Amino acid sequence: MNGPKTPSLAALLTDFGAASVYPAVMKGVMLGLCPSARIVDFSHGVPPGDIAAGAFTLMQGAPYYPEGTLFVCVVDPGVGTDRRLLWAASGGRQFLAPDNGLLSWLDEGQAVFEEMRSVENGELFLQPVSGTFHGRDIFAPAAARLLNGFAPEQLGPRVQDMKRLPFPRPHDSNGKLEGAVLFVDSFGNCITNVKASQAGNREGFFGGVRLGASRKTYGLAEKGQAAVVEGSAGFLELAVNGWSFAEKFRAEAGDKVVFK
Amino acid sequence: MNGPKTPSLAALLTDFGAASVYPAVMKGVMLGLCPSARIVDFSHGVPPGDIAAGAFTLMQGAPYYPEGTLFVCVVDPGVGTDRRLLWAASGGRQFLAPDNGLLSWLDEGQAVFEEMRSVENGELFLQPVSGTFHGRDIFAPAAARLLNGFAPEQLGPRVQDMKRLPFPRPHDSNGKLEGAVLFVDSFGNCITNVKASQAGNREGFFGGVRLGASRKTYGLAEKGQAAVVEGSAGFLELAVNGWSFAEKFRAEAGDKVVFK
Amino acid sequence: MNGPKTPSLAALLTDFGAASVYPAVMKGVMLGLCPSARIVDFSHGVPPGDIAAGAFTLMQGAPYYPEGTLFVCVVDPGVGTDRRLLWAASGGRQFLAPDNGLLSWLDEGQAVFEEMRSVENGELFLQPVSGTFHGRDIFAPAAARLLNGFAPEQLGPRVQDMKRLPFPRPHDSNGKLEGAVLFVDSFGNCITNVKASQAGNREGFFGGVRLGASRKTYGLAEKGQAAVVEGSAGFLELAVNGWSFAEKFRAEAGDKVVFK
Repeated sequence: MNGPKTPSLAALLTDFGAASVYPAVMKGVMLGLCPSARIVDFSHGVPPGDIAAGAFTLMQGAPYYPEGTLFVCVVDPGVGTDRRLLWAASGGRQFLAPDNGLLSWLDEGQAVFEEMRSVENGELFLQPVSGTFHGRDIFAPAAARLLNGFAPEQLGPRVQDMKRLPFPRPHDSNGKLEGAVLFVDSFGNCITNVKASQAGNREGFFGGVRLGASRKTYGLAEKGQAAVVEGSAGFLELAVNGWSFAEKFRAEAGDKVVFK
Repeated sequence: MNGPKTPSLAALLTDFGAASVYPAVMKGVMLGLCPSARIVDFSHGVPPGDIAAGAFTLMQGAPYYPEGTLFVCVVDPGVGTDRRLLWAASGGRQFLAPDNGLLSWLDEGQAVFEEMRSVENGELFLQPVSGTFHGRDIFAPAAARLLNGFAPEQLGPRVQDMKRLPFPRPHDSNGKLEGAVLFVDSFGNCITNVKASQAGNREGFFGGVRLGASRKTYGLAEKGQAAVVEGSAGFLELAVNGWSFAEKFRAEAGDKVVFK
Repeated sequence: MNGPKTPSLAALLTDFGAASVYPAVMKGVMLGLCPSARIVDFSHGVPPGDIAAGAFTLMQGAPYYPEGTLFVCVVDPGVGTDRRLLWAASGGRQFLAPDNGLLSWLDEGQAVFEEMRSVENGELFLQPVSGTFHGRDIFAPAAARLLNGFAPEQLGPRVQDMKRLPFPRPHDSNGKLEGAVLFVDSFGNCITNVKASQAGNREGFFGGVRLGASRKTYGLAEKGQAAVVEGSAGFLELAVNGWSFAEKFRAEAGDKVVFK
């Protein structure tokens, strides 16, 4: 087997916030070491330290990126502690991430990687490595080396396991499907963990409010009406046509939704 | 006449929010189909579903982009319903947008296009097309094909008309000019629909507060003072030197302003 | 001595906000005049008109950018007044900025430039120059000319001085070190003006709350515990593991912190 190819594109995922300079500091380090680097902001909008939200963002968006993409993923509340840093490869895509579960929802909730390594070769890092910004001191220089054609085996030794965050599957009991809100998007749509095929014709209920059976899109509900909609990531969403479901119903990730 | 040239740059305008991953999903699709694509984030800060704010953003910024720019415009509250998708070309710039009025304020409020087409060739789309994310499934792949040199006639048939949002012109009656706030910018400056040449030496009034005649810039008012300023888009703005007019006066788009 | 080299990268720093179209308008102008321009968003999250926050952002991030970077810095509450515009060069990096102190905290708080010029050659600007958006009409076209290889001396005459914002050094009296919060980052960490080497083993106090001696990273405090941490910019930070110090203690820039 040949090893993974040199990546041609770096996609940055962080919880640094859209207004932060920290993503730009990472880009500065990368461009210094690899002046031709192509860098895309994947998202910097993961809520601070929210590993599940980061995992969902990757699950939702990574499959739409081409082979040759290196995802540089910094949602890392344990920065500077003894948690490992991982490099992982699957299907032509590569990932750098803390070993905290962030990668575990790829491949529909049960990530499978062809190869994983522990990133620990200090010669590649910015020295001295700070305790609080490994995005700048470890992730960015490691990413730049990979973009420069550096072989992954020089990052560190192979590892077989990683920390996994269980994907919260809905429960089906006596025809009643109990799911949960996974993620609230920027429109206030509440993406659930229930697939359209799982719910079938059943009607959705949120906190006692009847939302009806799922529809193909938002505009098929009346203006201001709450509804269940087939979301673009394959999961059912709770939405209000022309407004925010999260705001109207004070809904948030983890809230229960029932289909019956 | 020759048809429009292959665009060299894609500029993305959406209401997805600066923190959202949805723009990055569109970029992933575009880069997969056109690895050399040059993509600029035009703005993702249009308030959700606010077509007028999107139209104003285009009016304000699109003229500063070079010929060869393809604007990919996704402010699309009717996604998945039977609204059309348009491709339109004018003066060397091209646009992809839902047919909901989003393009109608170009050319100073009365957009004129050399050619318009209905985008309906499903062979170009990501299949199956979702009901809720045409940015990913239709706009992004159509844009990538155009960047790859695909001829616009293959997108779909020519159309002659599009939905238009009337540009709200100020009313002049007996020397009193009645205008309105069009857009609140990120500083809280309230951009009106009144041009400096229309107002002349008249004084501005907002909710009974006298703002004086227009000034050349913010710093010519005292700190904390509300004033009328000649904005950079050619319209008069209501501003507070060193603060936010919108916050101080709880002003928002649609509010009246009078010059007399 | 040879003059500075043609920059290969433009990094934009503004207070326009992450959701604003104004940065994109600047990019449109730059790409029109220099189609091959490489442009990076350094940050658009400086609070409106906050020169000190802009200066700190540059201090924190600019050293990580490679030689050949041109920083285009628009935190400019005096836009359109008689404040000068500066071009400055140091160590292979170049800067365009209003002469309002924005550049003064580079080089650890006491910026030193090899060459400074007053940008005043109107032939390079977009005409007519507005009174309210020099980012578009002056900074962007000047940056594009520099990227195109234009010699800096054509921007305007050399100048020897610039406006300086004093860097607020901590006071040490009788073993008690009095510092202040310089900047609140997107996690709510409060970055102070005190270096770890200055504080040594002393314990930090904020508003009477004892925070202990500094730690290497956030995760070494208990969940929810406030602590002093060695920040990545070389300064001590006030942080809460897993939460926002700024929110928990209603802290903001300028607040006092004591080490004793």
